[in-house]
Amino acid sequence: MKIEMSDEKKKLEEEIQSESDDERDGEELIKYYSAASEIAAGNNAGGEELFVPPLNFAMVDNGIFRSGYPDTANFGFLQSLRLRSILCLCPEPYPEANAEFLRANGIRLFQFGIDGCKEPFVNIPDDTIREALKVVLDTRNHPLLIHCKRGKHRTGCVVGCLRKLQRWCLSSVFDEYQRFAAAKARVSDQRFMERFDISSLKHLPASFSFSQGH
Amino acid sequence: MKIEMSDEKKKLEEEIQSESDDERDGEELIKYYSAASEIAAGNNAGGEELFVPPLNFAMVDNGIFRSGYPDTANFGFLQSLRLRSILCLCPEPYPEANAEFLRANGIRLFQFGIDGCKEPFVNIPDDTIREALKVVLDTRNHPLLIHCKRGKHRTGCVVGCLRKLQRWCLSSVFDEYQRFAAAKARVSDQRFMERFDISSLKHLPASFSFSQGH
Repeated sequence: MKIEMSDEKKKLEEEIQSESDDERDGEELIKYYSAASEIAAGNNAGGEELFVPPLNFAMVDNGIFRSGYPDTANFGFLQSLRLRSILCLCPEPYPEANAEFLRANGIRLFQFGIDGCKEPFVNIPDDTIREALKVVLDTRNHPLLIHCKRGKHRTGCVVGCLRKLQRWCLSSVFDEYQRFAAAKARVSDQRFMERFDISSLKHLPASFSFSQGH
Repeated sequence: MKIEMSDEKKKLEEEIQSESDDERDGEELIKYYSAASEIAAGNNAGGEELFVPPLNFAMVDNGIFRSGYPDTANFGFLQSLRLRSILCLCPEPYPEANAEFLRANGIRLFQFGIDGCKEPFVNIPDDTIREALKVVLDTRNHPLLIHCKRGKHRTGCVVGCLRKLQRWCLSSVFDEYQRFAAAKARVSDQRFMERFDISSLKHLPASFSFSQGH
C-alpha cells in the first residue's frame, strides 16, 4: 500500500511538472493542482500548513506578481500576498470559486481577455496589452497579480512590455520570457515585444523597483 | 558591412543565451557580457541608455534579488536597485572592478564561498547556507543581491531554503529552482533543499513578502 502511494505521488509530481500540459482542460488542471496540494500537505510532517503558490508564480516588481491560473489550492498562499487586485488575461468568465475568493478578500478583478491561440494563429492585440499595462503601472492597484492560463505567453508578453518601459535591453526581456515559457517559447511573442511601441506610455512612472520605499 | 554586423550580433546573442556555458571561464564571460551591452546600446535608437540586468536576474522577495555574476555592463542597472549589500557565494576573490563598484556605491559585500563543483562531486555545506540565510533574512541588509557564477545552483539552493522557511511546498520550491537551472538542474541540489533542516532558523521572520509595507 505504501509503495503504491509513493509511486502514485511520484507520477503525479512528474505530471504536474510536465511541460506538455498545454492541451489539458480546466477540469483536469484542477485535479492536478489539488493533487499538488495533497502532496504538499503529506510532506508536511510538522503539522504546519504549507503554501502552494500558483503554477509559474514569481515576483515581477514591488507589488507586482505573475502566475498561471490560480486554483483553490493556491488561495491560502494568495491570501498571504494581501492582493488588492488581479489582472486576468483570459477571455473566459472567471470561475465561481475564484470570484468568491475575490469577493471574500476584497480583491478587484481586471479582465483583459486575449485568446490563447497557438502559433501560427497568434494575434496579440496591441491595445489590450497597452490598457493592461496602465492597470499594472497604477500603484493604487498594488499588490497585483497578473495571470493567464499557464503564466507563459500572455503574461510573458505583458511583463516583457513592462520591462521595455523599465528600459531593460531586449536580450534580458527575452531571457526572462524564455525562463517562464521554456519549451513553449514563441518567436511570435518575442517579435510582438520587440515591435511594441512604448512611446505612448512613457509618461507613466515605470522604472524597475519603482514603488519601493527605500 | 551591415550584413556582417547583423550576423555577428545574431551569433553573439545566441551564444549569450546558450545553456551550455558552464565551461566558460571568467575572462570569456566578460567578453560576452560586454558584447550584450553593446548589442543593447545598438538596439537603442532613441538615445536613452538601456539597462542590462545580470544573467539570470530576478526578484526573490521585497528587497531581495538573485542573479549570476555581475559584470561592468550590469553596473548601471545595479545602481538603479540602490543595493545596500551583495551576498556572493563564490570562493574566488571579488574582482577589482566589482569591488570598486561596491566601494563607490557604499555596498557591503558578504562572501560565503562555496565550491561550484560538478555532479557527482557536489558537497553543499549546510552551515554556510545557514549563515548566508541569516544575512538574507536581515532586513538591515536590504536591498540585497544574492549571486554566484550562473545564478543557478548555489543561488538556487539558498533561495530554495528561503522558500522552505517561507513554507512553500517542495514542488513549488523545485519548480522555481528548475526555472533558473533549466537544463543544468541537479537532483543533488534538490535533495539538499529537501533535507535542509529549517528548525534552527524558524525564529527569524521569513514569510513571503515579509518586508512589504502594505
